[in-house]
Amino acid sequence: MNLTRASSLLLCILAICLAVGVVVHAQAPAAAPAAAAAPPVPAADAQLAAAAAKAPTTADLAKGDPGGTITGTINDVPAADSTKGVTLPDVANQVGQNKIAANFIWTLVTGFLVMFMQAGFAMVESGLCRVKNANHTYMMNFMVYACGLFSYWIMGFAIQMGGAAGNGNLGGLNSLTGEHTLSILGKTWGIFGAAGFFLSGHTYDVGVMVIFLFEMVFMDTALTIVTGACAERWKFLAFCVSSSIMGAITYPIYGNWAWGGGWLSQLGTNNQLGKGYCDFAGSGVVHAVGGITALAVCFIIGPRIGKFNRDGSSNPIIGHDISAVLIGCFILAFGWFGFNPGSTLGASAAGNLRIGTIAVDTMLAGCTGTFGALIYMWMKNGKVDASMCGNGLLAGLVAITAPSGFVSTVGACIIGLVAGVLVCLSCWFVENVMKVDDPVGAISVHGTNGLWGVLSVGLLADGTSNYGGAWNGVTGSVTGLFYGDASQLAAQLVGISTLIGFVFTLSFLINLVVEFFVGHRVSIETEVAGLDLPEMGQLGYPEFVFRPEPDYIMQANKEAMAA
Amino acid sequence: MNLTRASSLLLCILAICLAVGVVVHAQAPAAAPAAAAAPPVPAADAQLAAAAAKAPTTADLAKGDPGGTITGTINDVPAADSTKGVTLPDVANQVGQNKIAANFIWTLVTGFLVMFMQAGFAMVESGLCRVKNANHTYMMNFMVYACGLFSYWIMGFAIQMGGAAGNGNLGGLNSLTGEHTLSILGKTWGIFGAAGFFLSGHTYDVGVMVIFLFEMVFMDTALTIVTGACAERWKFLAFCVSSSIMGAITYPIYGNWAWGGGWLSQLGTNNQLGKGYCDFAGSGVVHAVGGITALAVCFIIGPRIGKFNRDGSSNPIIGHDISAVLIGCFILAFGWFGFNPGSTLGASAAGNLRIGTIAVDTMLAGCTGTFGALIYMWMKNGKVDASMCGNGLLAGLVAITAPSGFVSTVGACIIGLVAGVLVCLSCWFVENVMKVDDPVGAISVHGTNGLWGVLSVGLLADGTSNYGGAWNGVTGSVTGLFYGDASQLAAQLVGISTLIGFVFTLSFLINLVVEFFVGHRVSIETEVAGLDLPEMGQLGYPEFVFRPEPDYIMQANKEAMAA
Amino acid sequence: MNLTRASSLLLCILAICLAVGVVVHAQAPAAAPAAAAAPPVPAADAQLAAAAAKAPTTADLAKGDPGGTITGTINDVPAADSTKGVTLPDVANQVGQNKIAANFIWTLVTGFLVMFMQAGFAMVESGLCRVKNANHTYMMNFMVYACGLFSYWIMGFAIQMGGAAGNGNLGGLNSLTGEHTLSILGKTWGIFGAAGFFLSGHTYDVGVMVIFLFEMVFMDTALTIVTGACAERWKFLAFCVSSSIMGAITYPIYGNWAWGGGWLSQLGTNNQLGKGYCDFAGSGVVHAVGGITALAVCFIIGPRIGKFNRDGSSNPIIGHDISAVLIGCFILAFGWFGFNPGSTLGASAAGNLRIGTIAVDTMLAGCTGTFGALIYMWMKNGKVDASMCGNGLLAGLVAITAPSGFVSTVGACIIGLVAGVLVCLSCWFVENVMKVDDPVGAISVHGTNGLWGVLSVGLLADGTSNYGGAWNGVTGSVTGLFYGDASQLAAQLVGISTLIGFVFTLSFLINLVVEFFVGHRVSIETEVAGLDLPEMGQLGYPEFVFRPEPDYIMQANKEAMAA
Repeated sequence: MNLTRASSLLLCILAICLAVGVVVHAQAPAAAPAAAAAPPVPAADAQLAAAAAKAPTTADLAKGDPGGTITGTINDVPAADSTKGVTLPDVANQVGQNKIAANFIWTLVTGFLVMFMQAGFAMVESGLCRVKNANHTYMMNFMVYACGLFSYWIMGFAIQMGGAAGNGNLGGLNSLTGEHTLSILGKTWGIFGAAGFFLSGHTYDVGVMVIFLFEMVFMDTALTIVTGACAERWKFLAFCVSSSIMGAITYPIYGNWAWGGGWLSQLGTNNQLGKGYCDFAGSGVVHAVGGITALAVCFIIGPRIGKFNRDGSSNPIIGHDISAVLIGCFILAFGWFGFNPGSTLGASAAGNLRIGTIAVDTMLAGCTGTFGALIYMWMKNGKVDASMCGNGLLAGLVAITAPSGFVSTVGACIIGLVAGVLVCLSCWFVENVMKVDDPVGAISVHGTNGLWGVLSVGLLADGTSNYGGAWNGVTGSVTGLFYGDASQLAAQLVGISTLIGFVFTLSFLINLVVEFFVGHRVSIETEVAGLDLPEMGQLGYPEFVFRPEPDYIMQANKEAMAA
Repeated sequence: MNLTRASSLLLCILAICLAVGVVVHAQAPAAAPAAAAAPPVPAADAQLAAAAAKAPTTADLAKGDPGGTITGTINDVPAADSTKGVTLPDVANQVGQNKIAANFIWTLVTGFLVMFMQAGFAMVESGLCRVKNANHTYMMNFMVYACGLFSYWIMGFAIQMGGAAGNGNLGGLNSLTGEHTLSILGKTWGIFGAAGFFLSGHTYDVGVMVIFLFEMVFMDTALTIVTGACAERWKFLAFCVSSSIMGAITYPIYGNWAWGGGWLSQLGTNNQLGKGYCDFAGSGVVHAVGGITALAVCFIIGPRIGKFNRDGSSNPIIGHDISAVLIGCFILAFGWFGFNPGSTLGASAAGNLRIGTIAVDTMLAGCTGTFGALIYMWMKNGKVDASMCGNGLLAGLVAITAPSGFVSTVGACIIGLVAGVLVCLSCWFVENVMKVDDPVGAISVHGTNGLWGVLSVGLLADGTSNYGGAWNGVTGSVTGLFYGDASQLAAQLVGISTLIGFVFTLSFLINLVVEFFVGHRVSIETEVAGLDLPEMGQLGYPEFVFRPEPDYIMQANKEAMAA
Repeated sequence: MNLTRASSLLLCILAICLAVGVVVHAQAPAAAPAAAAAPPVPAADAQLAAAAAKAPTTADLAKGDPGGTITGTINDVPAADSTKGVTLPDVANQVGQNKIAANFIWTLVTGFLVMFMQAGFAMVESGLCRVKNANHTYMMNFMVYACGLFSYWIMGFAIQMGGAAGNGNLGGLNSLTGEHTLSILGKTWGIFGAAGFFLSGHTYDVGVMVIFLFEMVFMDTALTIVTGACAERWKFLAFCVSSSIMGAITYPIYGNWAWGGGWLSQLGTNNQLGKGYCDFAGSGVVHAVGGITALAVCFIIGPRIGKFNRDGSSNPIIGHDISAVLIGCFILAFGWFGFNPGSTLGASAAGNLRIGTIAVDTMLAGCTGTFGALIYMWMKNGKVDASMCGNGLLAGLVAITAPSGFVSTVGACIIGLVAGVLVCLSCWFVENVMKVDDPVGAISVHGTNGLWGVLSVGLLADGTSNYGGAWNGVTGSVTGLFYGDASQLAAQLVGISTLIGFVFTLSFLINLVVEFFVGHRVSIETEVAGLDLPEMGQLGYPEFVFRPEPDYIMQANKEAMAA
């Protein structure tokens, strides 16, 4: 009966609508007269005027163009002076506009994809944690976006990119002219930028906004790596403070040195080390910085209760949701198509059409990384290990990030395969030799393989890329040891040394200060109960029923509470 | 053993493949002759012919172009007459084609992102509901896409955009010439459009299709807001009917007034109120319309059993899946990069390069919205509240939607911060003062903050934007009260009054009719049992074990069943 | 107290930062002189030089351009010879570059969306399986990406696209010149390609990389269809081997015939059958090949224990997570905006602007497919069926894939509606008549509706599309029976016969070989226990508590173990 009434109601509405449609007739507008060409024009403009006269009229277009054959012609080139019609300079200006528009589209869309990686990280990290900390782990991954963005807007961006003027892809970025330099032994070295605080003043600029968005999402990727390694025991307030400082200072400084015109990028022009430190999309800048900071905080915060036994041996602590882990990996692999190919910062300019190669290199390295981990674990344990396969994919993607712009597809496969095995070995090493508790393997995935990615540029860059004919101001194509340029490897090793020496130290010191003022670790009671209720006030899945934790965890909890 | 067999199989296949590869040789095609220029050409064409003669030949290209240095030249400009080679008009036509192509790409890709927000809404809304209604809530969010799309295709689009001819970004949209107008006091006011029913006739046009897709996904966003506020008690059939009518009538009418050439957009040209009602991406058109309709249906449908006690006090009813809520928020924030920046409807044209600023404004407002809610709830309760942080993010995004095209990044931060606090206050107000039960906070997130977003344009638009030099037909840049134009605020207030007065009334009346014919509310038995089995025939997670509901819900259920 | 310390720390940092900002001043660079034009230039270059002289200077740009009014001009057109300034050939070259860049952007971004569909398939398929096989089902969907990609890179791509030279959208793809042909009755027919093994040699090319990425993600879509139909009983190793062979051989061969210059595409030029076999985005190439292969493997692997009773009647086996199913459907619908509109392989070229129509057709067919299944099941069972609604959406999307480039929106609605009903009927037929156990309905969704999609081109293509004026080398627009060209239907029927006759046979034989060497089916013990622990070593959700399986499954398990 209700169905009848609903149907009759729907029918009435449809009838009314159709009636409305029939009554109403669209009024066709009068055809716009073709632009009249002024008599004494140069030859080029006469040709354009003739073309405009032959172009489809508004009346033609009002009849609809289902095949797309009369849309997108000289009609759509705006004339600066409508009385003259379209002139050659109008055409040239529109060509420049089209180029910048294509590059903005590319950089923004790929930047959006990178931002979406936050969801992937949240799923991978939380899926690998226990259910009693699910809400907390998801929330750290959620808040890291806001914390990082805000501090990067205040000052991080200015430090990193404040001296990055000159990018022709995005219209010049001419207001970013604030790089501070030091003069050492007659050479000038960039240290940090200082233009773009709050994106105000001259940096309120359409091009600067595009580069800000793209660099910001890269920075947030680095920050979110730390939340995985410190999960299940990191106090929420400490996490907020630590992440904000990392986004404001630690990350931007190294980012400036590599990408913002700083001294690492000048190793080529100043010291003839290849094309300077080359890190196409940030195996070092993003992933190694994230992984190394994760290691520093892990040293301070210590392992989870129950992870290590008194004799130093370790227990497995299994994640609660493999579906989240694997879907998160897919989201990350999807976002990586923004991460690497987007790092050209444009599509339309000499050499930028290599974006397709970069994307294929990225997918292939992820593929061989997956195989590396799959086969290694299968041979070791006789069974497939889903979590390690996911980490193998990510390791391959991390490793290809720096070289993706410079290597062939065969090179990419090699880099990924090494990464897939390396992540398994590194996870074992971190847990069993270093005795560091990294619930999600972030140190191995991002730290170890970030360094491997930086190194691989110095080995496998094949000298075929061309991004306007120079890189870091040095003419020629980036070329690694196996293709004849050992000095490039040297530049990469300087970068790696800086990551291990400087970035680790800085991160460690900063987080020691945070330890003093805020304290990184939750109380034992909170950790045993799970962080969700004490810190977040709510469970992740309040209506579901769960099993008790394994005995060795229960026992360790009891001992910790008693201590 | 099986492994051995598999390996040998694989090896055989590889061997065969390699053999095939070796046997086969690629045949290099003969080089295409350079286009011969006809003798008596004007100077411009002679230059182009000379350039074409020097361009890479097909034989060059067949050797592969790993660096992208010889791909994308004059070779790729098609000649209308291949015997003449590329002429200047060919170049100009291709420039127009490139412009339209870039704008189509931008509008479509951002439209796709907005469509993906449906998944985000589904996750946020369902995650905030109880597990016994999970399937039903997911299904409402799933079906709203189909219901809305179908009724919008039939007539909603024609009503909203049927008079929207003239958009140069998308080639003119010259077949949308059906705006119906009323003449009042010598001024002409648009009331509704009437071209594009079923996208047939003259509106079977490549440009119209692009705008249809973009406007359709916006409309569906508005519809899905209502499903959240009415979740856990809305009869599936009633939801289908109500949503279809909203997509066919309620939404399109207000959409026409604001965006389709209707009277609100004419407040500037007709009444000198700023640049007319300005709602860049739809804080009002999409979010406030959705939130206000949600309120109207909530009034009719009433609160869930157990939400309010006899004394009027309210009980918390906690969502079942915080991971879905937070991942859904990320999906929404990702999709919002389509929502706001895509609302330029193009990238390549005067002023459209502001897309980067719009994207950064969007992310910053979301960020400060998150902080607003985080800090407010942390101060109030002493604990972080994950659900409210998510709502704070969304509130910031909703609020920045209208002003995103007109404000600086500092303005965006202010708008978002206000929104983050406002959503907390509004949720409290709706629940405790209005006694309306809104399970997901949709009325506060989208309604309250939609109105705040519309208002904020009138306050904080900074007068730096330029979209072809005019907005709504009024020359100049949109400028708010704080930057000197009080009349803009007046136009915004007219829009807000229309939303509260007209849209609420219309929605309420329409849904009263639906109440009469279909009935909005499920039976008490269905609600107590959970809607999944009675309405959908299946549970959301049939194999999982759940806890019993809290006592106050059990008690209220018992009383309701007895009544 | 800790809060106080944290706040003070933050304040200190902010103060330092602000101080840094104040101390540092950005140095404005000197204005670059306008390019001087060499004296005796042709008229066109003089006009361009004059325009360049009037363009914004670097000093202007360094003041920031918030409105985007001075970015994107003749300034951004690079001059080949900087002493001459911008010349007309420079403009023409940049126009070609912009065109290729726009097409690369479109093809890559839509390709990324298609890749993301892997996540959607993983969620739909796993959600429809039981919780005891969740990890295994997710992992098959995860590994299929790597297995397919690797074998496609080795040889699949070369076989499929090795003879595809000539695509003007992507710069010509001139190195893909390896199609092998047979001469029959005086006509030449393409059989398979052979250029692009390992993407090395001449195929290390920017354009080839773009087409590789796009074709690769299509291939992986076909592979993942099989994992659904064979879920809950497919041995992981067998799955890896079978999928790799499918990506290397089965899929590429049919792909070559339809898209790579093979004989099906030549039915028009050779035999005057319409425009040859037309499959715009792969209802046949991707979905029918996937669905038919799924059927072949299902015949070999047999039904799950407990699915069929001794009398041949079947039992329902319900999926464990409806949220994953519906969110997965949204991801798939989102990715389909890459699948279909991306299949133009470009946006900027004659006829390609139809991308908007293709996208709208896609969404409408999905919508009516949903309605078809919704209404059919509602009428049949009196209740909404969420899983079948999801399958209805997918069926509509599958069916519109082949015709999406050639039909109107009304045509799309009809195709989708038929598909939505057809998938319900087909599921019933496969289960109850063919007695094939397909846990997710993949055979019906992709196989049956893939064939329907191929057929519908021959019926409903309306002759309005124009992709450069020809299709498969035959001048004119693709036109179906209802619009006057019966011969097109004949070409489609040849394709359908090839799918059923050749592809099924080849798939069946290949998988028989795999059965012999590896064995497709897990042991009874493994299947009864669930594949997660025996095959993957870990449960999907190790901390959650689950209900026992239904009695008829328990009973069947017991009988199987006893047998």
